[in-house]
Amino acid sequence: MAKILTKRTENYSQWYNDLVIKADLAENAAVRGSMVIKPYGYSIWEKMQAALDKMFKDTGHSNAYFPLFIPKSFFSKEASHVDGFAKECAVVTHYRLKNDENGKGIIVDPDAKLEEELIVRPTSETIIWNTYKNWIQSYRDLPILVNQWANVVRWEMRTRLFLRTSEFLWQEGHTAHATEQEAMDETEQMINVYANFAENWMAMPVIKGYKTENERFAGALETYSIEALMQDGKALQSGTSHFLGQNFAKAFDVKFTDKNGKLDYVWATSWGVSTRLIGALIMAHSDDNGLVLPPKLAPIQVVIIPIYKGTEQLGTIVEKAETIKKKLQDKGISVKFDDRDTYKPGWKFAEYELKGVPVRIALGPRDIEKNTLEIARRDTLKKETISQDAIEDYVDNLLKEIQQDIYIKALKFRNENTFKADTYEEFKNIMNNNGGFVLAHWDETSETEQKIKEETKATIRCIPFDTTEEEGKCIYSGKPSKRRALFAKAY
Amino acid sequence: MAKILTKRTENYSQWYNDLVIKADLAENAAVRGSMVIKPYGYSIWEKMQAALDKMFKDTGHSNAYFPLFIPKSFFSKEASHVDGFAKECAVVTHYRLKNDENGKGIIVDPDAKLEEELIVRPTSETIIWNTYKNWIQSYRDLPILVNQWANVVRWEMRTRLFLRTSEFLWQEGHTAHATEQEAMDETEQMINVYANFAENWMAMPVIKGYKTENERFAGALETYSIEALMQDGKALQSGTSHFLGQNFAKAFDVKFTDKNGKLDYVWATSWGVSTRLIGALIMAHSDDNGLVLPPKLAPIQVVIIPIYKGTEQLGTIVEKAETIKKKLQDKGISVKFDDRDTYKPGWKFAEYELKGVPVRIALGPRDIEKNTLEIARRDTLKKETISQDAIEDYVDNLLKEIQQDIYIKALKFRNENTFKADTYEEFKNIMNNNGGFVLAHWDETSETEQKIKEETKATIRCIPFDTTEEEGKCIYSGKPSKRRALFAKAY
Repeated sequence: MAKILTKRTENYSQWYNDLVIKADLAENAAVRGSMVIKPYGYSIWEKMQAALDKMFKDTGHSNAYFPLFIPKSFFSKEASHVDGFAKECAVVTHYRLKNDENGKGIIVDPDAKLEEELIVRPTSETIIWNTYKNWIQSYRDLPILVNQWANVVRWEMRTRLFLRTSEFLWQEGHTAHATEQEAMDETEQMINVYANFAENWMAMPVIKGYKTENERFAGALETYSIEALMQDGKALQSGTSHFLGQNFAKAFDVKFTDKNGKLDYVWATSWGVSTRLIGALIMAHSDDNGLVLPPKLAPIQVVIIPIYKGTEQLGTIVEKAETIKKKLQDKGISVKFDDRDTYKPGWKFAEYELKGVPVRIALGPRDIEKNTLEIARRDTLKKETISQDAIEDYVDNLLKEIQQDIYIKALKFRNENTFKADTYEEFKNIMNNNGGFVLAHWDETSETEQKIKEETKATIRCIPFDTTEEEGKCIYSGKPSKRRALFAKAY
Repeated sequence: MAKILTKRTENYSQWYNDLVIKADLAENAAVRGSMVIKPYGYSIWEKMQAALDKMFKDTGHSNAYFPLFIPKSFFSKEASHVDGFAKECAVVTHYRLKNDENGKGIIVDPDAKLEEELIVRPTSETIIWNTYKNWIQSYRDLPILVNQWANVVRWEMRTRLFLRTSEFLWQEGHTAHATEQEAMDETEQMINVYANFAENWMAMPVIKGYKTENERFAGALETYSIEALMQDGKALQSGTSHFLGQNFAKAFDVKFTDKNGKLDYVWATSWGVSTRLIGALIMAHSDDNGLVLPPKLAPIQVVIIPIYKGTEQLGTIVEKAETIKKKLQDKGISVKFDDRDTYKPGWKFAEYELKGVPVRIALGPRDIEKNTLEIARRDTLKKETISQDAIEDYVDNLLKEIQQDIYIKALKFRNENTFKADTYEEFKNIMNNNGGFVLAHWDETSETEQKIKEETKATIRCIPFDTTEEEGKCIYSGKPSKRRALFAKAY
């Protein structure tokens, strides 16, 4: 199989699109801005969902489901929320179609106009807090720790598969608390859950921090995010957790009686990750041959390919392959034995490289004679011939090693592409010539942040939690600064 | 706790509504016709999803995700489909809101009108077959065995929680095949999967059969359904599987080259079950005290409640309860130990009865002395005091017994309420005075079916697969008939 992907160095953006399509992950739908998530792509999402859902439940959350449609008026209730979310959205105005009397096919029935338009949810704070109002009277009803797996719609003009589409899948947690401290702890807990997932499942190192006022969620007092660095030196915001204070409780009049009988507004958080994570996963690890998937999220962890001429050999090889498959499955490893005779081994090798299967085992007649097999790692493309004995332990260890090595490689890349800049010249140089993360002093004003964005396209991704206080001067204004912000161009 | 539910004999419909609300399963949302599925209700759905998803995967299917929005024109492509589905539906006409210039809040931006309106999917055959067109060229691309878990919207005027809401959650399988036989086999396989799920997980006996032309899915050549009988003598259609022939392939021009190089249209099926199953589950088994859940779908299978006065005793009881909880969990049983001191045992007993927890264990000071515990079954409300020894085996067996007994009880009820009627008088008598399933001869015309519906409100639920051929006369027209149809009033 010829190389079918554009090289990353040639055109990173084209490489990404090629890869998403050719690896059968997703494609553009007939509806502008929407995507079809194909079975292989969706199976990665299922793996992500399963791991995240367990983490949410282990931290005390339950799932629930709230309506897709939100009455237009709900968006006006939280002042800053409406500016952020109620603009570019899908609006339902009618509830019936009919056959055109002039034979022009089906048309929207003008008699079926809704009194109040419905917005297809871009996020669910408003409908959920309108619901929580009826669930909460006393401190005994708190906390509410609820998550929803759902589709949301934000009308996007420029879309890219997984990274930015009009409709996407996500989870949104919405919690209600009796105290400010509890809500702040929850906000922090959930950004830690996301970071844990990113690093230990996606093998993708992330920087945790808080957003500047400009970049905060519409309606939040504080937004925490995890930021990952892609191979083209651009950042990708991979998850956010918001401390909403009492904003939504006030907007929807949600009060509770505390232990002392005092009435107060409820404290809120919300947090979410989306199918965008699949985009992050692709861009963090993959190469010019195709996907590189961390074993913990790979739908197929091991593929076994028989090498043979003539059908006589095939019988012995199939038998041996099935035995190995069984041994691996008993270890909890997901295995595919591809014995299709419609494709040649070389074609299959390229196919599973493209699809990012972490480990490939090839079995030929000489392997049968010698009790060996050829094992290849997708991440390094290294091959070796080893004994079939205790293959299940070997593969089990190898998968763990690959998971770790992919993480280390990504971490090394990030470290090599994280810089400190002390002057604006230095900053611009890095942004223009290399990209990556740049830690720089900033005077904490939105004006400076905005100017830097206009002049360099770099934005403040977050103020890292682990930034140490240090005296410095803003690279742009020269005003005094106490800590560095993390800048990057971003997706 | 006083009885908080209306009695079934007083008002079955009110009993159902009371139960859904009081057991914290769901509630009506602020958006007309939509519901909020609350955490306890959603956890039942999660159990159903997990079991069904495994069955789908075991039969070779994969999940994928297709767009929420469908261009209006797609509905016109399959002639009968448009009549069935494109009428009462949510129509997106605009993609932006803006601040009103006259200060009247946010309004729909008239400049953001879509060229072609988008329909919020009522079902996804059209968008999926438009997609499959690009996936299928040759017989090598077949079969496609895909399922989608999604929300759908059908604008309903009269809604009831779980049973009929404008938005609901479901799964829809959409498969593509090279031959008619293969598609027919798939249609049958999936109705068998649904029947298996209904009987072995929901403990709800169902009758499998095919629908009359009147009741078929819009666009199908054949619709199979499973029909269950509720306690008020009405039928509830619980799942359908459709043989779509080549209708959608022709509508969307989906052809493939077979092994001999001949071009032909692809054969299709679709099949689905929805959150309506939760309504069926409630109505099949529950009683005037609340929910009765089959152990296999109960979010909490066992609740342990401590009985004590004063905190001294509590320590010993808690310790023993935690030991029992651990033993049960090690057996794979889901257990809740409710040690809240804000509620009395009597209140808790009623609460878990209401919520249908299959087994309740109560532990008091005398139990600690005597190495006993009180165990109660939700289905029969029977209590007994038994030894704590080998409690995990006892409970494990008890859960299996309850699962079976609930099924047998429902089957007995159905048998007692399934009748044969040979005259129209007899038929009407049964329908008016008792309800239930009635097997009767019918002349196989839509006119007769329609007349019977108008006069008795009973419809043909299905022609059971296992009906034996017998000579008879249509109860309505007196014309000759070869088999009995299954009639009932239905949800």
